[in-house]
Amino acid sequence: MPGSPPPVVLLTCGDPAGIGPEVAALAWHTTAAHDRARLRLVVDPEVLATTLATRRGMPTLRITPVPAADPRPSNADELLVVATAEPAETIVAGEASAAGGRQAAAAVNTAFALVRGGAAHAIVTGPLHKEALHAAGYDVPGHTELLARGCGLPDDAASMMLWLPSANGPGGLGVVHATLHQSLRSAVADLSTERIAAAGRRLASLLAALLSRPPRLAVAALNPHGGEGGLFGDEEPRLIRPAVARLAAAGLAVSGPLPADTLFLRASRGEFDGVVALYHDQGHIPIKLLGMHRAVNITLGLPLVRTSVAHGTAFDIVGQGRADPTSMLSAIDAAVRLAAADWCG
Amino acid sequence: MPGSPPPVVLLTCGDPAGIGPEVAALAWHTTAAHDRARLRLVVDPEVLATTLATRRGMPTLRITPVPAADPRPSNADELLVVATAEPAETIVAGEASAAGGRQAAAAVNTAFALVRGGAAHAIVTGPLHKEALHAAGYDVPGHTELLARGCGLPDDAASMMLWLPSANGPGGLGVVHATLHQSLRSAVADLSTERIAAAGRRLASLLAALLSRPPRLAVAALNPHGGEGGLFGDEEPRLIRPAVARLAAAGLAVSGPLPADTLFLRASRGEFDGVVALYHDQGHIPIKLLGMHRAVNITLGLPLVRTSVAHGTAFDIVGQGRADPTSMLSAIDAAVRLAAADWCG
Repeated sequence: MPGSPPPVVLLTCGDPAGIGPEVAALAWHTTAAHDRARLRLVVDPEVLATTLATRRGMPTLRITPVPAADPRPSNADELLVVATAEPAETIVAGEASAAGGRQAAAAVNTAFALVRGGAAHAIVTGPLHKEALHAAGYDVPGHTELLARGCGLPDDAASMMLWLPSANGPGGLGVVHATLHQSLRSAVADLSTERIAAAGRRLASLLAALLSRPPRLAVAALNPHGGEGGLFGDEEPRLIRPAVARLAAAGLAVSGPLPADTLFLRASRGEFDGVVALYHDQGHIPIKLLGMHRAVNITLGLPLVRTSVAHGTAFDIVGQGRADPTSMLSAIDAAVRLAAADWCG
Repeated sequence: MPGSPPPVVLLTCGDPAGIGPEVAALAWHTTAAHDRARLRLVVDPEVLATTLATRRGMPTLRITPVPAADPRPSNADELLVVATAEPAETIVAGEASAAGGRQAAAAVNTAFALVRGGAAHAIVTGPLHKEALHAAGYDVPGHTELLARGCGLPDDAASMMLWLPSANGPGGLGVVHATLHQSLRSAVADLSTERIAAAGRRLASLLAALLSRPPRLAVAALNPHGGEGGLFGDEEPRLIRPAVARLAAAGLAVSGPLPADTLFLRASRGEFDGVVALYHDQGHIPIKLLGMHRAVNITLGLPLVRTSVAHGTAFDIVGQGRADPTSMLSAIDAAVRLAAADWCG
């Protein structure tokens, strides 16, 4: 967007009883993204102030409430807060409560309205607590379904990419799953060329926006040694190879099916930007081993930019000065890149 | 074995056309195991001498042929060679040939006869090349089946533990698979309480000998999030939990079923000594990411101690001074520990 002002990126803390406010404040104070985006934290200012005051290890930050339309740039020392519509209430640190769930939902709903109204360009969500959200009367498992409903889409419209940024440099590894939250037996049964190709297309579109270049993709095999030439299953020639061919025919740089055990090793060494995983653990085992604290979820399938930390509320370490903002920093960076690329979900 | 002489541990190079002779020579020169075992390399002395002479980066080692019954200790500077029965022949480095397969088979057969006869206590095998072995007239995929046949057992009698020693310290992570070389679909169908419990018992016995203490075991879950309370499949309560209960009832320290993505992260941080993996990639993805160059295969199910490097012949880098002896060093160390513990397969 040459000439246009930097995008407005909205952060939320998730459940204020968790480590969300801590990682948001720490990330705000240390991110390099203020140069490329105008950040705002969407939260009740009173809840934020009382919360941060009781947490150890917080940076010194002025808290300045601003109207949503305020055009000012952000900086590392002044937390610009856009207030939610929800009145302030008392939050007990480290405990799941309806109040925490209510504050978390209010923040993401406010952020969503601003993005849909054109006043902001991306949402970065902190960790929320499912039971607290339920206690507050929201019958959804998380932020993603709230956002899907806001878009008038079914709860399962959205999917996600796991994004593991490199420890240094602008690259990283993205993983999209062809199947996800279902039994392994049903995942194997539900695999299809269409599902695999669709995952590959979503992966390619998102990575192209994130990296500003055509990504190098790979599709994992399902069976040991990639099926060992038909000895261990037929899904590679029957389902996966046709999906890879379809992606290649669409002009994508794509390899596969590749044996999953060596594929993730190769990807971790920088040979690929993205991998289509065929089932939950095939993607999650390597991403968690390679550095879960840096990982980010990026929402796919909704008409907006939304990234999220990949960790939970971590009630057990709240307030102890042990919260690690690395995932929040990655989530902010990814949101800024996608907003700048005018990616639209 | 207090008072008894240190065990005799026999190394083989695998296929002499591959990097086997290089990693054997490098490991011989640097292993600390000479203090705890009497090492011998089983190979044709002429083949070894001409092979090593053409490989870059080899240590200076005297080659001394010794009779199998020679009781002398070994040391880092003198390669003690026990000759095979096979006459010397010309080996072309980096190429699969019947000659290479023949020399490899002769070495392991000689080593096997010495162990069965009581003259030696363990075998450490280098990498061999399947096609070379076939060209030499052996209709088996590898060393393991040759050894099984030698024992009068069927080809599939043996299984293995993947062992990843810690980079520092005596610990590590062992993985035994409940299913291995079969399609993922059939692996899920073939899972049973008996198979999982049997894998756990083999894992426990081997780790106890390797670590000289009761090991801490975990059994992986099959489904995402460990089945999420029955939402994603029923194998956890139906098959896996009863297997864990059976192992616990046998007095083993065992946890599970644990979600596989976080389990391997926890294991890699030292929380467990061994994991029962339910299918090939569930164990191989994490072990390869955590440090395949250090990994070792340990044979289970045969009445002898046999360890093996976890890498192949690497024909593409033969002779270039790039062969990494880490896996061979791990394999020697594991064999010495198991021989010293009088473990018997």
